[in-house]
Amino acid sequence: MQMAELSRRSRVPVATIKYYLRKGLLPPGTPTAATRAEYGEAHVRRLRLIRALIDIGDIPVAAVAHILARVDDESVSLHAMFGAVQYSLGPQPARPVLDTAGQAARQEVEELIGELGWRITPDAPARELLATALAALRRADAPHGPGLHAYAAAMAALAAKEVPSVLPPDGGGKSRVELAEGAVAGMVLHERVLVALRRLAQEDASARFFEDR
Amino acid sequence: MQMAELSRRSRVPVATIKYYLRKGLLPPGTPTAATRAEYGEAHVRRLRLIRALIDIGDIPVAAVAHILARVDDESVSLHAMFGAVQYSLGPQPARPVLDTAGQAARQEVEELIGELGWRITPDAPARELLATALAALRRADAPHGPGLHAYAAAMAALAAKEVPSVLPPDGGGKSRVELAEGAVAGMVLHERVLVALRRLAQEDASARFFEDR
Repeated sequence: MQMAELSRRSRVPVATIKYYLRKGLLPPGTPTAATRAEYGEAHVRRLRLIRALIDIGDIPVAAVAHILARVDDESVSLHAMFGAVQYSLGPQPARPVLDTAGQAARQEVEELIGELGWRITPDAPARELLATALAALRRADAPHGPGLHAYAAAMAALAAKEVPSVLPPDGGGKSRVELAEGAVAGMVLHERVLVALRRLAQEDASARFFEDR
Repeated sequence: MQMAELSRRSRVPVATIKYYLRKGLLPPGTPTAATRAEYGEAHVRRLRLIRALIDIGDIPVAAVAHILARVDDESVSLHAMFGAVQYSLGPQPARPVLDTAGQAARQEVEELIGELGWRITPDAPARELLATALAALRRADAPHGPGLHAYAAAMAALAAKEVPSVLPPDGGGKSRVELAEGAVAGMVLHERVLVALRRLAQEDASARFFEDR
């Protein structure tokens, strides 16, 4: 297909597609004339992935390039590619505040990961994201909710189903790039699904809680 | 305490505290001289709440004022206050795309809420947040993961523990304003806790998945 059709199919404006081509996010099409090129289904899929990363994942263009490089590099394991995506997702952790609450929260995170036996790299940004939120909870003297272990157990149960569904052992007949694209979109978008469902579930729980009294 | 002590205790710069006083986010202190006022523990707690809403909840100042007005207005029920906070939280839903995937996703959300019997107002932003993410999943042809009902069940189970812990029936000896402040901080910060734990759980699940083959 030509550029106009690629734009129509992907819902990405022509100027934006040209920007992605210049930035190397999108591989060039097959030249058919001096100013024309032919694009394929891989371009449509790649454009949708880029838009999902930017629009839904809130990932800056520079980080998208970093992720796509790992998607395309077949020497990078899927686990490492998965990590490159996750470590780029917003929000990036704020600079740690090392007051009493901050130090206690970081220790709480280390202890939790140790107790659960989770395999997490030392530089995983989610460690600091978690510590920052726990420190703020301590400083605000906020209610503890169902507790850290209840949240962790719920997330571990979901992750045990999510990871194999995103990366099936047999590959489901898909190429490595297709699998990687699906994993990227799935990781970003399912986080949004989960947050939205949590808010809906809380509204319902609040409605029931107040009606029952 | 005086302004300098309030700033030290709350970790908020004096200029920022004065800005919040001008904007009406923080009630004035008790005047003790022409240019001096005395502040109390309520000011410290309120400042920490404001910072948590802005820094952690990513809520704009105008929306913070809207929330605080509902926290302070005792005629607003806690359920309605809870709703005002949640509906202000980022990310705000993008303008809906009403293509086939967008329409199918919105219908999927309505059906899910109906099947689960959840009590959700028609204008809850989380409806559109969920539909936007589901539509993007459809467009990206991404893996479905454990399925919408598995996510919803996990979130409902947590919400059933979260809501009573944030708003205990006996009030736990706290004033309405203190309860509201705790609920606000808890709602915002526990969402961060959950997202961070989900990322950690996924990294661990991915590490196990790839090691086991």
